[in-house]
This record gives sequence, structure tokens and C-alpha cells, in this order.
Amino acid sequence: MSKSPVIAPTDAYSALLTRMRELRVADSIEQILDWDSETYMPRGAAAHRGEQAALIAGVAHERRTSDELGALLERAARETGGDPVRETNVREMRRVHERAVKLPTALVQEIARSTTVAKEAWSRARADRSFSAFAPHLQQILDLKRQVAERVGWDSEPYDALMDEFEPQARAADVQRVFDELKRELVPLVQALTSAKRQPDLALLSRPAAVEGQQRFNRLVSEAMGFDFTAGRLDISTHPFCTGITTRDVRLTTRYNERYMPQSLFGVMHEVGHGLYEQGFLAEHEFTPMAAAVSLGIHESQSRMWENMVGRSAAFWRHFYPRLQAEFDSYRDVPESAWVFAINNVRPSLIRVEADEVTYGLHIMLRFEIERRMIAGKLAVADIPQAWNEGVRSLLGITPPDDAAGCLQDIHWSLGIFGYFPTYQLGNLYAAQLYAAAERAMPDLEAKIAAGQMRPLLDWLRTNVHHHGRRYRAHELVKVVSGSELSPRPFLDYLNGKYRALYGV
Amino acid sequence: MSKSPVIAPTDAYSALLTRMRELRVADSIEQILDWDSETYMPRGAAAHRGEQAALIAGVAHERRTSDELGALLERAARETGGDPVRETNVREMRRVHERAVKLPTALVQEIARSTTVAKEAWSRARADRSFSAFAPHLQQILDLKRQVAERVGWDSEPYDALMDEFEPQARAADVQRVFDELKRELVPLVQALTSAKRQPDLALLSRPAAVEGQQRFNRLVSEAMGFDFTAGRLDISTHPFCTGITTRDVRLTTRYNERYMPQSLFGVMHEVGHGLYEQGFLAEHEFTPMAAAVSLGIHESQSRMWENMVGRSAAFWRHFYPRLQAEFDSYRDVPESAWVFAINNVRPSLIRVEADEVTYGLHIMLRFEIERRMIAGKLAVADIPQAWNEGVRSLLGITPPDDAAGCLQDIHWSLGIFGYFPTYQLGNLYAAQLYAAAERAMPDLEAKIAAGQMRPLLDWLRTNVHHHGRRYRAHELVKVVSGSELSPRPFLDYLNGKYRALYGV
Repeated sequence: MSKSPVIAPTDAYSALLTRMRELRVADSIEQILDWDSETYMPRGAAAHRGEQAALIAGVAHERRTSDELGALLERAARETGGDPVRETNVREMRRVHERAVKLPTALVQEIARSTTVAKEAWSRARADRSFSAFAPHLQQILDLKRQVAERVGWDSEPYDALMDEFEPQARAADVQRVFDELKRELVPLVQALTSAKRQPDLALLSRPAAVEGQQRFNRLVSEAMGFDFTAGRLDISTHPFCTGITTRDVRLTTRYNERYMPQSLFGVMHEVGHGLYEQGFLAEHEFTPMAAAVSLGIHESQSRMWENMVGRSAAFWRHFYPRLQAEFDSYRDVPESAWVFAINNVRPSLIRVEADEVTYGLHIMLRFEIERRMIAGKLAVADIPQAWNEGVRSLLGITPPDDAAGCLQDIHWSLGIFGYFPTYQLGNLYAAQLYAAAERAMPDLEAKIAAGQMRPLLDWLRTNVHHHGRRYRAHELVKVVSGSELSPRPFLDYLNGKYRALYGV
Repeated sequence: MSKSPVIAPTDAYSALLTRMRELRVADSIEQILDWDSETYMPRGAAAHRGEQAALIAGVAHERRTSDELGALLERAARETGGDPVRETNVREMRRVHERAVKLPTALVQEIARSTTVAKEAWSRARADRSFSAFAPHLQQILDLKRQVAERVGWDSEPYDALMDEFEPQARAADVQRVFDELKRELVPLVQALTSAKRQPDLALLSRPAAVEGQQRFNRLVSEAMGFDFTAGRLDISTHPFCTGITTRDVRLTTRYNERYMPQSLFGVMHEVGHGLYEQGFLAEHEFTPMAAAVSLGIHESQSRMWENMVGRSAAFWRHFYPRLQAEFDSYRDVPESAWVFAINNVRPSLIRVEADEVTYGLHIMLRFEIERRMIAGKLAVADIPQAWNEGVRSLLGITPPDDAAGCLQDIHWSLGIFGYFPTYQLGNLYAAQLYAAAERAMPDLEAKIAAGQMRPLLDWLRTNVHHHGRRYRAHELVKVVSGSELSPRPFLDYLNGKYRALYGV
């Protein structure tokens, strides 16, 4: 960033910075309300929370769409002087503004209100294992989001208009091609691994681990990864998430199971990966697109890289396994190699967030296909459970016993989030391609990690990914950093290399 | 409320209800932000929180002061048809509107922003025991609040304009007369008790009590008092408080000390007293002045009644002491009478929130005198520590070792809250007068409490205080419920009766 010429601030650009800041402040209030409703809000307060969310969403939307902002963007666009920071901020703010002006405030508020209520309904329906109680809420949200797609506009299919919010410029047809290519190798790989003679001992993952011990160990790992707890938190929620309110206020959540410790451990490493990105933007760019994530796919690349490529590597556990054994008595007699094999077990399963790296992509393909059909009007809400269960059978060869383990497992649709799921799998691809670049840049990376030193990787990510903010689009960033276009190849190479060795196939 | 005639809704009043609701929603967002910053916000996030608070305070202020609201209030005032609910809502909304229109949005936002930063500065200054680090923040806030007083307007002194926000229609000169009358009896009572031969064993209050045990016991007591945890929470903060976001979302905080369990126990009973009031408004009036507290003095009457008149009574402990002993091993050998005497010890001390019922009023008189002089421009910020320490010496005969135990102990000024302290002592007076009325209405009240039954008292408070919302002013409510004007007599009778018996003087 420091290479750009110094330009005196102009009125339009300074005024634009003020508007950006005010807008981020409004959005950040909505983030606090969301965080609160996921963590500490009393159950009885859900309906009122919807009113609050609608109010602040309305304020933010008015600011995002104001004519004054539009005029400022026009003027500032002529005054960037070729400065890449300014160009980025104007271009990205404009993208947000132009999308937002297509959406009436009433529609935005209606979505905020409905999703707040629907999220609670989803939570209850999941607990009751009953899709039908959630169906009317989902229908309402689907109708609203289809209105959004129509108003935003699309070339090939309405799904693109929704996905564009999360992964700018991505197209469903392109994603489908990449996913098809992946599927061709993933399905046989899963078969090879599940039918291998050498298999991990999964029972050892269920050894007792007190919540207090998990909290201590998670904290140890999070701090070693570089997460700054004076500028962040870790709390408990039903559905783990990370919300970056500012670089100085990044909040993660997890959930604990005393008979399945890996859930929170890898969940926390995942959210810390997101959190490091949010804490890693340059303070000088706070509240502008230069201090915001490129896309959800790039965001997910950070979480998956830390969770899987680091957290499930043999190198990582060379340093941390003795510390894990010191915390959990029940692991004293478990050899390090058995632990590493077990946390890398591959097995078709029902719950996406608990799926292994290899089958994970198949869960995403299922959701991508179903929601694409929903948005296209080719799948009725009432038919979702059946479509879901058939898809799981076809891709993974197993059947959910109920909707809680099926189409009710994810929170996303209740929040009105469609077109988000594919970014999870894109994240895996980005992660592998970026990590391969990091390894080329730092040949001793694995040795450092094996010595418990994760700072070199974080510093590399800071410089090569975080500090750029939204300067590059996702596909540009991948090319700038790795030297090549996005390809599923590095991810498949990573999977084949790691898993065929572990399973001896 | 049910006695009022049924009137068809008119356009102006219905529209007014909608506006009231929107306004409460905005205010309630500010409450969530405040609660978050006191409980879970990472330290690094304070500056940004100021921006958030300023934004939402601005939105609320614009709504509170809009010409449309003013016009609606005019029309609705002509359409109440004598209905007391409508009359109350229109009158009280008008009071809020007329006060708010005198304050420019920029001033309101500046106060929200400055106090958010000052609160953090106060917290650090208190930890460092250094008033000088806080002084510039306090000076800024004092200047802003003096501007408020001038804009709101006053007859006798600017302090009245500020106190009116918390205790409508109260006047500093009247409060001074009541406080002087109290002081005449309190000072000799304190002398009689401190020089009595019979004295409690205070050491037993410092017996070890694990935080987990305190949390369990606090919960037991809170639920027995009738607090609904599906519509509320209890968290930890430096300065305990209660915030009623809606009747279905009431949040209390406390702090724990393993070597001084009564702090959190009585702190929680105090906050639950506030919380029961907030949960006790009628749901049909939610978001209107009919579902809001009369004044802070009346609010405090609820907290002090539960904390002191119930929580420090011999009757209460007849039921709960065996339960306390069951939770805390360290109290197994402490006789019930020794415990009851110890929790009712009277002793001049430095910290207001830890002061006993008898000396508490003297702490309030000190603050009332100092802040009245600050607002009148008769006491410079730099001179506060000296004035404080001299006041403590004169009223209580002791001297603070540093400002943390002196003028930095309370959060209020950092929040821009002046004219609030006297409502604490008014609360004690209201509490005694209301409780005497409850005893006349229910001669078996003490016996019920001794049997662990607190529902009769809560039901009486619901009917006689909570359900009225803001229908009556504080002095009217006291008269309606007790049959007489406010007087310090019931409070002094209560203190003399209880403490002279305990101390044998």
C-alpha cells in the first residue's frame, strides 16, 4: 500500500470517507444485535430484537442508498489520481451503493424483521426435529430473497444476483463446472479411503474432556495462532460464528461437548482463522473497503487453512500434542500418531460442520444444488426435506434420521442467506492454492509450525492477503499471490497427498 | 386500569402509539450497546462504541423531537376522552418531547460520544487511583451538561433542570429540606449505634464462598423473589446495574468477591428489585409510558425494599439461612442471629454501594452537595477530590486513602448523570412508606416472608406500583398508595425500630 503516491485529500473523497465511516457504524450496530441474539439474549426477547434489527437496517440502508452518497461517489471517482487505495474504496463503495439503491428500504427492513423471527423459529424447529414448523418462515424469506434477486438483476439465473453479495462476480454456472471437476475426484477418493484396510480409531475422539479444560486449551491455541484477546472475545452459541465489528472488536463463538472435544477445538481454530483476518486489516483503513474481506470465499480460505491445513497437520501436533495430553488426562495413553490419524478420519456423515475435509465438498454441492433450485422456483419449500434426503443418499450413501440431521441443520436460510454455501467450498480451493504459495515462499514453514511458531504464516497472510483489504477481487488476489488462476488442482493434490499417505492407499 | 371506558382508537392516538414504539426501539438499541460495553465488549473497542452510541442517540433524538410527533401529540391530547391510559401516555410523551426539542441533536450526540469514552477513562482512572487522568473528561461532560441545563431552563437553579430528567418535578431546595431533616436524626443514630456495647461480628462476613456457590444461591433467591430468567439475565460487570430493554428482556449485573459474599448477594437482591419492576409492567402497554417507571426514586424504592426491608430482615433469613448454610460450608457454625446482626452492621465507611442503610443517606448528601455546586459553577473540577474528602470527614468522620475510594468510586458522572444521586435516598424514603402500606394491607406479610413466600409482596407491588406505569407522578403515587404525603418519618421509624433493637440502644 505504501507505494502509492501521496495525494492531498480532496473534498469529495474526504466527505466520502466520513460517509463510509457512518455507514460502517450503523452496520456494526446490527452486528452487535446479531451477536447478542446468538449469545446472551433472553429467549423471550426475540420478537423485539426483530424490531431493533429492522430499525438499524433501515438506517444503514438509507445511508447506503442516499443521493448524497451517489453524488460523492461520482465526484470522488474522478479524483482518485490513480491511487490504488482510493480507487479500491471508491469502486467497492460504489458496488455496494449501486446494489443497495435497487432495494427499497421497506424490503430490506422486512428481511431484517422476518429473519430475526425466523432464526428463533429455526432454532425451535431444529430442537423439535420438525421442518414443518419452520416451513412458513422459510417460504416468507424465500419470497423476499427472490424479490431481491429480481430487483438486483441477473444475466443467467437469479441465484447469481444473490451469490454476488457474498462472492462478487462469481456465477453459478462457473461454480458448477468447478464443483463437477472436484466431484469426479472426490467421490473415488472417499471410496478409496473408506474401503482402506488401515482405519483410524475414532473412539478415542470421544474421550472425556471437561469444558474448563477445553476452554483453556482453546485459548492456548488461539493465542499461539496470534488472536488478540484485548481486541476480541470467544463465547458460546448454538451455531459457531465470527463477527468482525472493527479490527479492535472481533467476536468468535463455539459450542462445547464434553464427550467430543475436537468439535470445539477445530471449531475455534476455524473461527480464529476468520478472526485473524478481521483483526489483520490495516488500522489506517478502518471503516473503508480497504479494511474489509475480499469475499466470503477468501474469508473461508483463512478459516479452513488454519483449521485444516495447519490444525490437522502432523507438524502442528508435534508441538501441541504434549500440551493436549497435559490438559486432558484421558489422552495420556493415546499415541500422537493415533490422534493425528483420528482427527483426519474420512467418513460420509450427516452434519456439514462436523464433516471431514474430503467429504465436506459433497455437503456443499448438495446445498448449492438445492438452493439454486429453490431460487429458480424449481423446488417447493415443502419438498425440501425429500430433496435433501435423496441428495445425501446419492452423494454420501447415507440417510438422515430426521430433519434436524438433515435440512434443518444449517442456520443460513433462516437468516435469508442464499448463495453463501458455495463460498465454503471455494474457500477450501483458495486455501490450498494460497497455502501452496506460502510454502513456496517459506520452505521452512512446516518446520516452524512443528516448533509451535505460527507467526511466520500469520505475517505472510497479513502481507499477502489481509493488508490488501478489497484491493483485489477474489480471483485476482489468488492470481497475484499464487501466480496462477484459481484451480481445484492444489486442493486435490493436498487431499491426495495427505490422505493417501495416512490411509496407505 | 380496567376501569377506564373503552374508546375506539383514533388516528392521532394510533399513530402516536406507533411513534412511541419506534422511539423505544431506538432507545432500547442504545441500552443493548451500553449493556454490552459494561459486560462483554473487548477493551480495545471503546472508541468505536462511542461512535455507535452517538449514531443511535442521534436517531432516537430526531424521532423524539420530530415536528410530526409534536403535531400528533397536539391532536392526541384532544382525543383522550378522559381515558387515564391515554392521558398518561400523551402527557408523559409530551414531557419527553418538550424537553428533547430544547436540545440540539449535535449536543445529544456529543454527550453520547463523550460519555462512552469518559466511562472507559473513568474505569482506567479508578484502577490507577488517579483523579487527574479523569479530570479533563469530567470537565468536558460537566460543560455539556451545564449547556443542557441552560437549554432546558430552570427557575431556582440549573441543577433542577438536570434532576427533572430522573425525578420529574423534584426541586433541589425541597430535597435539601428533606435531607436536612433526615440528617438531624441520622447522625445521632449512627453515633448511638457505633458506640453501642453490643456489636456484630463482622469477620464472619468474610468467610470464603466460591463464586459458583454464590451464583447458585443468588439464582435461588432471585427466583424465589419472582424474577423471570426466561425474560432476563444476570451477568458480571464492574458496576452493578439493571437495564430493562423490554418487559421480556431485563438484564442485571453483579460482581463477585470470594472473601465477601454479601456484596453480590445483596447487590443481586437490589438489582432484582429493579428488575421485577421492569418485568412488572403490563404487556398491553409495552413501549408506552404506561409501561415505564415513574421516576428513578420510585425505581430505587423497589430495589431498596427488596434488598434491605426484605433481604436484611430476620424474617427472610428464617427461611433462607438454612439454605445459605447448605450452600456455604464456611457458615455451618455461624448462628442465624449472628448472621442477621452482621448483615445489619452500621459503620461509617468509604464506599457508597457497600454502605449500610443508616449511613447510606450521608453518602448521598455528600454527592448531592458536591454536584449541586459543580453544576452551579461554584466548585471547579480540580477541587473535587479535596471537597469530597472534606465532606466524608465531616459527615462520616473518616478519610479516603485515595480517589478510587473517594470521588472516583461512582460511574455516574462519567456517564453525564447529574441529579441522579438524590433519587437513591428518595428511594429509601419511598420504600419505607410503601412497605408500611403493604404491611397494613397484609398483616401476615412478615409471616409469609418467614415461610419463604414472597409472592404476596410482589403481587401487591405489581398491583399498587408496577401496573400503574407512569400514570402517577412519584409524590402522587406515594399518596395514592400510602394515603399520606411523602415524609421521612416511615424511614426513620423503620431504622430506629430495627437498629435500636439489634444494637440494644
